[in-house]
Order: sequence, then structure tokens, then C-alpha cells
Amino acid sequence: MKINVIFCPVTVDELYFTNRTTVVIDVLRASSVITTALQNGAKEIIPVANVEFAVKLSGGMFGGQTLLGGERNTKKIEGFALGNSPLEYTREIVCGKSIVLYTTNGTKAIAKAKFSENLFICSFLNLSAVAKHLVELRKDIEIICSGRANHFSLEDTICAGKLISEINEAFDDIEFSDSAKASLILCQSFSGDILQMFKNSEHGKILMDNGFEDDLIFCSRINSSAALPILSGSAVKLFNK
Amino acid sequence: MKINVIFCPVTVDELYFTNRTTVVIDVLRASSVITTALQNGAKEIIPVANVEFAVKLSGGMFGGQTLLGGERNTKKIEGFALGNSPLEYTREIVCGKSIVLYTTNGTKAIAKAKFSENLFICSFLNLSAVAKHLVELRKDIEIICSGRANHFSLEDTICAGKLISEINEAFDDIEFSDSAKASLILCQSFSGDILQMFKNSEHGKILMDNGFEDDLIFCSRINSSAALPILSGSAVKLFNK
Repeated sequence: MKINVIFCPVTVDELYFTNRTTVVIDVLRASSVITTALQNGAKEIIPVANVEFAVKLSGGMFGGQTLLGGERNTKKIEGFALGNSPLEYTREIVCGKSIVLYTTNGTKAIAKAKFSENLFICSFLNLSAVAKHLVELRKDIEIICSGRANHFSLEDTICAGKLISEINEAFDDIEFSDSAKASLILCQSFSGDILQMFKNSEHGKILMDNGFEDDLIFCSRINSSAALPILSGSAVKLFNK
Repeated sequence: MKINVIFCPVTVDELYFTNRTTVVIDVLRASSVITTALQNGAKEIIPVANVEFAVKLSGGMFGGQTLLGGERNTKKIEGFALGNSPLEYTREIVCGKSIVLYTTNGTKAIAKAKFSENLFICSFLNLSAVAKHLVELRKDIEIICSGRANHFSLEDTICAGKLISEINEAFDDIEFSDSAKASLILCQSFSGDILQMFKNSEHGKILMDNGFEDDLIFCSRINSSAALPILSGSAVKLFNK
């Protein structure tokens, strides 16, 4: 069994993911939003790689059943119903709805990896649920750290490291790539206090400067959800065994 | 003073480096080759980003004074005088010569960062010489880990972390990016035995499989050189105070 972590998805061709088992991480905040929305009863999340397509897609669906969500530079996009804060995705608002989601990094990474055989969405919120399922699957794993505008993302890497360490407990023959090894080591140093790690990270500081400190608190709640989001066709849904 | 590490130079625009102080690292093996060649009396290294330009450039120079060096997939390129093993760049062969160098990652990274105000080349061989000069310069620093075909490179990251830790001893107000913090932590875990770290790395394994184990031994000799290679115009030369 092999585990690789991709710090820079923009350099990887989309066909690379064909037949692979892939995990997309964008802790701050797309993968936390997707986990939360599905946990709160959203029917599906349709990730899109550009704003124009999001608007076009939502226009073609039944108005009341679809919500447009997403951000540019941390802020809600004009005309969109929802931003990219998981706190907005409450049961009252999202239950039963299809959500078309555009974010700067996370949904682009999902779109890039769409040819994967299995594509799961992981955040700190649902980390053990994803780890448990990957242990059952017993396949080679590609973990994408969606990062921030192609920069290295500490928070996504720590989440990847924590996911790998949980999977590693179940096997004794995993072959780690350099980036997977690095993620494991970094996780040992930084995962003791996830909220503090967020606050010291580049992306966390930007979110705090823009008034999203409550999002950092919410996104640091490790294993607060058992949701297992999986890409099915062009939508992310809850995995059903 | 700010320090940033770039794990994935392909995603960064070349104008980003304008007016910056940049360090290019490609431990296995371009930055070790450049350090060794200059240490052994080469007049200059002309890094190029493609093979065709290397051939064109060397053809336009005086035959006896120019050597073509470089590799593709670890091996010497047909018709080139030298490969990418530092052991080939002996005083007998390189003294007084201009060397046109093409390598898969390192020379491309130098070409990408050519608009830097200062561009230094660092390997384990000359790490303290580079650190000492950067401490004197007291400028913000961008460190490029040239990597391997856009993959994360553990050995370049450990070298970056070691360089940062030496600079950090001289200041108490450095602002580290996420990637710089990660490099420092990884250096603490992996720099105890550099040769062993090479042997366990993805790139090190490929080089051993191709018969270059002696290169790993050579490239692990930390601070065996006081050479400080700097880009001057289109050539890398020894820095003169």
C-alpha cells in the first residue's frame, strides 16, 4: 500500500488521478463546508472550478432547490446565497438542497481529481470517518492538499499527516512518498493544538483579519462529524454502504 | 526579515523574483555540481532551461574553453562532455572553463528566478558559506527547492531548513512563512544523518538504482566547500566581495 501527498495540485495532470483513490483536503474552508453541509442534510454539493459555470449551472436547476455558495479572497461572491463559512451551512438553510459550490482552491482540486475511482473529502471535522473507510478500502492513496493559491498550506498538510497516522495504525507495510513522510513528521509537531496551529498559519491569519475567527474554532473540532463525503458523478454526496 | 520557501517553483511567475534575494537549492545534484565546479576553478556556469539552447550556446563559444554538462532522467545527455555528477567536475577537467549546464530541475529554477536582485546557489556542501553571507545581507529571503519534476523534494527541503536554522541563530525577529516553518521542523527530524536521509528519499533511491551512490556520499559532505556561487548576468560565478 502506497500513500502520497500532493502539495501542489496545479502541477498534476487530471488524467493522473484516473483509477486512483484520492482524498481532497481544504481545511480552511471548503472541505469543512462540504462536510458540514452534508452532515446538516444537504442533498449534494456540486463543486465547480469557475464562477461563471456555477451561475450557469444553478440557473438551469429548479430555483428553490438550489443554492449558490462560495468565495473569492475569503468573501462571499456577489449574488451568491452563501459564502465559504461552514457556520452558514445550517440545517435550516441547506437541508434537502443542492449546493453549487465555487471556492478558490478546494473545489478546483476536486474538479482536477474528478477521474479518480474514489474521491473523498476530508477535514479535521470528519478525519476518523475518512481514515476508517480508507483502512477498509485498502488501496493506494493520493491526498491532495488544496493549499492557498498554489502556496504550501500548513493546515492541510497537518490534516493529511493526521489522516496518514490513523491509517498507519492499521497496517505495517505502507510505502510513504517523501511528501507523505514530511506530512507525518509535521503532524507530530503541530497537531497538539489545532486551533493554535490555524491561528499561526498564513491562511488562518488572513481569515482572522477578515473576521472569520469563529470559522477557525469550528474547523478545529476534530471528529465532530461522521460524514463521509464522496464524489458521485458530478456531485459530492454522503457515502452509502 | 522574512523567509519563505518555495516547494513548487513551476507555479511561481518569473517576475515574482524581481528585486528579491533568492537561494536555489537542488541538492541532488545541480547545486552540488555548480558548487563543486566553481570550487575546482571553473570560470563560470551558464545555466540553461532547455537542451537545444545549451547546444546552441556552446556552439557559439570558443570550442576549447566551453564544456557542455547536464542530464536527462539522471543520465548524461548524448554529445555532452559532462553529466550531472559532481565527481566528474574535477579541477583537471573544469579549471578555467565555461560550463553550459542543463539539468531537469535545478537549472530551470535558476532560469526562472533570474530577475532576482541576488541569486545564490546552495547545497549541503556550501551551506554555511551561503548562510553567513545571507546574515550579512540582512534581506528577506526566498528559497527555491527545485524538487524533482514538480514533486516535493525531501532533500532540498531539509537543506532549506538547515540554511534557515543557521540564519535564525543570528536574528530574533524572523517572520517565517508556513513552508519555512515546515522546513525547519523537518530539518530537526531528518538532518542528523544526511546520507541516510538521501538513501531513504525518492530521488536518492532513483540515483542509487542508476549507479550514483557515490554522488550521494559526496553531496552529503556538509560544509566541505566555502564557495559562494552567485548569478551574475547570465552566468553563475564565485562571489567576490
